Amino acid sequence: MSRESVLLFGLGGIGGIYACILQLSGKCDVHVVARSNYNAVKEKGFKLVSPKFGNHESLKFAGVWKSTEDAAAAGVRFSYILCANKALLDAKPSLSDHLRPIVTPGLTSIVLLQNGVGAEEPLHASFPDTTIISAVVWTGGKPLPTGDGVEQFNREGLTIGVDYRQGGDKKEEDAKLAKLVEWLTAGKGDCTVTEDIQSERWVKVIWNCCWNSLTTATRLKTGPFFDSSSQALPLCYTIMEEVCAVAKAKGLTIPDGTVEKLIKQCTDVPYPGLPSSMMADNNAKRPMEVEVILGTPVREGQRLGVPVPTLTAIYTIVKALDYGNLNAEAAKA
Amino acid sequence: MSRESVLLFGLGGIGGIYACILQLSGKCDVHVVARSNYNAVKEKGFKLVSPKFGNHESLKFAGVWKSTEDAAAAGVRFSYILCANKALLDAKPSLSDHLRPIVTPGLTSIVLLQNGVGAEEPLHASFPDTTIISAVVWTGGKPLPTGDGVEQFNREGLTIGVDYRQGGDKKEEDAKLAKLVEWLTAGKGDCTVTEDIQSERWVKVIWNCCWNSLTTATRLKTGPFFDSSSQALPLCYTIMEEVCAVAKAKGLTIPDGTVEKLIKQCTDVPYPGLPSSMMADNNAKRPMEVEVILGTPVREGQRLGVPVPTLTAIYTIVKALDYGNLNAEAAKA
Repeated sequence: MSRESVLLFGLGGIGGIYACILQLSGKCDVHVVARSNYNAVKEKGFKLVSPKFGNHESLKFAGVWKSTEDAAAAGVRFSYILCANKALLDAKPSLSDHLRPIVTPGLTSIVLLQNGVGAEEPLHASFPDTTIISAVVWTGGKPLPTGDGVEQFNREGLTIGVDYRQGGDKKEEDAKLAKLVEWLTAGKGDCTVTEDIQSERWVKVIWNCCWNSLTTATRLKTGPFFDSSSQALPLCYTIMEEVCAVAKAKGLTIPDGTVEKLIKQCTDVPYPGLPSSMMADNNAKRPMEVEVILGTPVREGQRLGVPVPTLTAIYTIVKALDYGNLNAEAAKA
Repeated sequence: MSRESVLLFGLGGIGGIYACILQLSGKCDVHVVARSNYNAVKEKGFKLVSPKFGNHESLKFAGVWKSTEDAAAAGVRFSYILCANKALLDAKPSLSDHLRPIVTPGLTSIVLLQNGVGAEEPLHASFPDTTIISAVVWTGGKPLPTGDGVEQFNREGLTIGVDYRQGGDKKEEDAKLAKLVEWLTAGKGDCTVTEDIQSERWVKVIWNCCWNSLTTATRLKTGPFFDSSSQALPLCYTIMEEVCAVAKAKGLTIPDGTVEKLIKQCTDVPYPGLPSSMMADNNAKRPMEVEVILGTPVREGQRLGVPVPTLTAIYTIVKALDYGNLNAEAAKA
């Protein structure tokens, strides 16, 4: 019996690293959808530079595809599809649209290696019989400037769990997670398995809501932002406390002291502090992950009657920056 | 007996027009502090282009000075000093520092032709025996690109009143206002005199708090901002209502329907809508009038226990943008 196949969708900094980890595990056939760098990866293989996993000049994946349609046309059936593309809830085509050709009911599990909250729901709606695994990614990864590989830095790790589906068989879903974790671990990946991935996701979004949005709106890293006025740090607390209240209203477990801990993790960083992925996207006028980082917390707050005035203001501003980036004529009008 | 003297401090778009109006009145000797364009104005005079006041090639002021110190050294005593410089409450030297050499107690009245709220208080503190006249400026004016004059467009008008000082003689202060209004009117300026200038100032700051801050933070004119998300227009109402509540808590008179009227005045403007002076300052990385437009409403809200969460968030963001503009190294860190 041939080995099972997995697909990495989104071969950027994070997707590239998890493609390599699974490849190095030797446990499965790794396929990738490489959009911008298809030719290089197809012909020359993929490069990994990493203090943790070692340097590898040319990892040869079992399949390199230009799109999910191409992978489907080749008849490959995937046990897991790991999505490490940018999380854009309002993008067309949607993630569901991309995955539809390659999801095999009963076989495929979809694995989200993405920022933010709220990305699971549209997938459950599109694929009601499919296991959705969700992970908070703590990994430092960036594409090599040469476009033919990835560099891993800082730490590598996932907090990972099943986002249990309604009417699903928990044991069966847990088994699918366990197999993936076994493969990742065989590749020396660090996995912390949790039964409550949504709480983990929301703790991380408390962080992202604050630093991503403020660095984007102010165009400053966290250090100069803290220096900009006596209101700067209090605003960070306000934002985090609003998201925290929404998460608690959802029934999630947010440990006491979470906000203070997340603030300290950032203020402890030496000047000039932290940039953010959203700040980089804004500076480059790329689409920003506004909805999964800010939009879902705002909407959940509104739905649950939790006051989110500060989040709403900053969501609206970042949404407008996103609009301006994607509509050059409107921005220049 | 020689005629009385007035000084225009800040010879930009607005200051230039009121220098011309007073010059054309023939009622007083007009002096100006011309900083960037001293040589041109001193030698060739000042140009006015206006559908309302006519075109004038070369208005010769009684005095052209590089600084208030120079005017003081020449021994001129001013009945009125009209301040049309940018309103920067946190600037060093402060407006009081600039005016100190040329304020003659008992003679001089200080007249503010500036945006925002809160600029009178430091002047009262610095010049407790001096009449402070305050005006809301409805005038379209901009410096000529050649730097030697000013263009008046759209409308011209002031809503003007005494910001009565504690322990002052109201009749005497009213008489000082009346004389200035007489001169402005003789120069065909439109003045609406009010006994409650603070209410008028706060109505205008309801407008400015919203449009100046949002166009600055989002880098969009109002039209594309309204298009950017369904949250955009509600955010405008929220900001205006917060400022409105602060003004009412101060005991000021804000007519019913003010917010709706101000919103409509903006949404009625054809696409792409309005830019703002603050947006232009931000784009050019010039100091922004953050404190008089946003800072005072935030502080007054906090002092009076009026919730201003949205104002606070946008104030903090604009303050950080201002900080980044004025601290290039921090912004690039």
